[in-house]
Amino acid sequence: MTSPFERAVAAVRPLDGAAMAEAAARQDRLTKPRGALGRLEDLSVQLAGIAGECPAPIPEPAAVVVFAADHGVVTEGVTPWPQEVTAQMVANFVSGGAAINVLARAAGASVTVVDVGVATPLPPACDGAPGLVRHPLGAGTANLAAGPAMDLAGCRAALDLGARLAADLVEGPSGARLLVTGEMGIGNTTAAAALVAALTGRPAADVTGRGTGVDDAGLARKQAVVERALALHAGAVAAGPLETLAALGGFEIAALAGFVVGGAAAGVPVLVDGLIADAALLVAEGLAAGVAARCIAGHRSVEPGAAAVLDALGLVPVLDLDLRLGEGSGACLAVPIVTAAARILAEMATFDAAGVTDKDL
Amino acid sequence: MTSPFERAVAAVRPLDGAAMAEAAARQDRLTKPRGALGRLEDLSVQLAGIAGECPAPIPEPAAVVVFAADHGVVTEGVTPWPQEVTAQMVANFVSGGAAINVLARAAGASVTVVDVGVATPLPPACDGAPGLVRHPLGAGTANLAAGPAMDLAGCRAALDLGARLAADLVEGPSGARLLVTGEMGIGNTTAAAALVAALTGRPAADVTGRGTGVDDAGLARKQAVVERALALHAGAVAAGPLETLAALGGFEIAALAGFVVGGAAAGVPVLVDGLIADAALLVAEGLAAGVAARCIAGHRSVEPGAAAVLDALGLVPVLDLDLRLGEGSGACLAVPIVTAAARILAEMATFDAAGVTDKDL
Repeated sequence: MTSPFERAVAAVRPLDGAAMAEAAARQDRLTKPRGALGRLEDLSVQLAGIAGECPAPIPEPAAVVVFAADHGVVTEGVTPWPQEVTAQMVANFVSGGAAINVLARAAGASVTVVDVGVATPLPPACDGAPGLVRHPLGAGTANLAAGPAMDLAGCRAALDLGARLAADLVEGPSGARLLVTGEMGIGNTTAAAALVAALTGRPAADVTGRGTGVDDAGLARKQAVVERALALHAGAVAAGPLETLAALGGFEIAALAGFVVGGAAAGVPVLVDGLIADAALLVAEGLAAGVAARCIAGHRSVEPGAAAVLDALGLVPVLDLDLRLGEGSGACLAVPIVTAAARILAEMATFDAAGVTDKDL
Repeated sequence: MTSPFERAVAAVRPLDGAAMAEAAARQDRLTKPRGALGRLEDLSVQLAGIAGECPAPIPEPAAVVVFAADHGVVTEGVTPWPQEVTAQMVANFVSGGAAINVLARAAGASVTVVDVGVATPLPPACDGAPGLVRHPLGAGTANLAAGPAMDLAGCRAALDLGARLAADLVEGPSGARLLVTGEMGIGNTTAAAALVAALTGRPAADVTGRGTGVDDAGLARKQAVVERALALHAGAVAAGPLETLAALGGFEIAALAGFVVGGAAAGVPVLVDGLIADAALLVAEGLAAGVAARCIAGHRSVEPGAAAVLDALGLVPVLDLDLRLGEGSGACLAVPIVTAAARILAEMATFDAAGVTDKDL
């Protein structure tokens, strides 16, 4: 009997080359100079390849899922934020007051919040709140600098949870046609940086950044923690991406990896946010080759580890707005651009239909 | 008796420093690490300064105006597109099939098309079309490489037309709260490059690009034409921005300059598109200092002249998507980002209100 995540891995298909070729040819007949819509044209071709038809259906509605969990590595002093902020922010998400709520409303996207392992009690505002899924797999992870963050069973459970949620959003009543990755977890830029270093082979100093704002001493401490973790878990890293994820990741990162694989398996584009989601995608591509081709990088995070992942996967982000928030904010801002790219191919007139003379070639 | 453009120039005010300071302070109380929303935070501060209140009202609805005109300089072989494409594209705009129509619909923006000097007859589809303003100031400009493109009276009439349209859109029934610059005119990248070279003092080769797609020989020809025009009109350039605009510009470029000044005077933000609108803004800033501070650069055009203007005015574009179409496409794509920036400041919860613990400073 296979798990939801394993079934999703098996269902990921290569992009549809015929639909992509048709989309590229159609772009050249639209009333504009060839190539003049730049990245929008590339996106429309990718969307056709993901959907397996040309033009691709408009990828609406969009659904954001914010996976929240805590990290034992905060005991190493890698962040100036107290751990209870994760739980408090879950309440803020549920109340609609966080950045991702504002940006999702503006983009016409739904927000689902998932407690996949918050360490401190959720505030009373969360009790029975709609849009909150409570499925904690632990009270945060263990300290990755002292041992594995998760055991393999917990890691697999998080992958399954993410994959199942993606399938539910696409196949269920919400009928999502574009999935957007979101996350919250005090300390999670340390776990993500460790994963990126392990999976790209880059040194800790190259991929570890200031996260939500550590000072110079904090950054040095954070880099040292990542280095120590890499040395400690060299065996897990050598064993493969699943073992690496369990040793260095987090519940929300594993759930995100499952979520992007689930979205890819369901045939919808997945818009990926900053460092945390990028790290999850890097793991996901290791577990299910072809997933990254079905993802769109929403934003170029200022975190160096994010750029390392995008380079490794050959992804060019849609936006570059100096964001370093996470939550899914950068990806959510890219939603209108992605849907606009689909509309261009579906709705623009051709030279023939509009009676416009083509360039003298 | 002053003209509509002169009245608009006199009405441009500096940004409201108190509203901006209040906006910056409010950003720091929102439930996110300080500065974590990057460019969105800057935009929200600018919008408060433009509106003179904090938070600024959400800048909706948006109105795109596409000014269309022809250019006598096409006789120099600066473009592979036949001149009748300007008129044909006006019909395409009116029928809703062009890129700007698709992108404006997606952004919830209206589109007004203005024939401010198209050289060839408009197709029958344009007769009585709603959303088309027919106000030609000539059958295209004269060849700027052989004499002045416009006389001063024609140039002033275009400035007035643009300023009046901006005021009508803001004060009239459409109640626009965000103006978006658009244009169409075969040959207009040559005129815009000449203006940028003249007003920034940069050499023609630095600011003249391939426009909608000339080959190497065409590019060399285009640069030579710009150089010749600069030498021919050195007196006009020395006389000032109005004389420079008349000598090297175009009816749609002058109308755009009037439009951005009109929008600035009306107290609404103006989202500026690529090279042509950037050149118009550079002229406008010369005629009415303070206008550029009330504009937002929507997109970093691949045209080198566009980057030269943004550098000169200290504007950082919102998007960088390799577009080189014009029409207002890049600016229109930035509309959701600009409104999102306003919503962040207006709608996000503060640390106090949400019960979230601030970072340990």
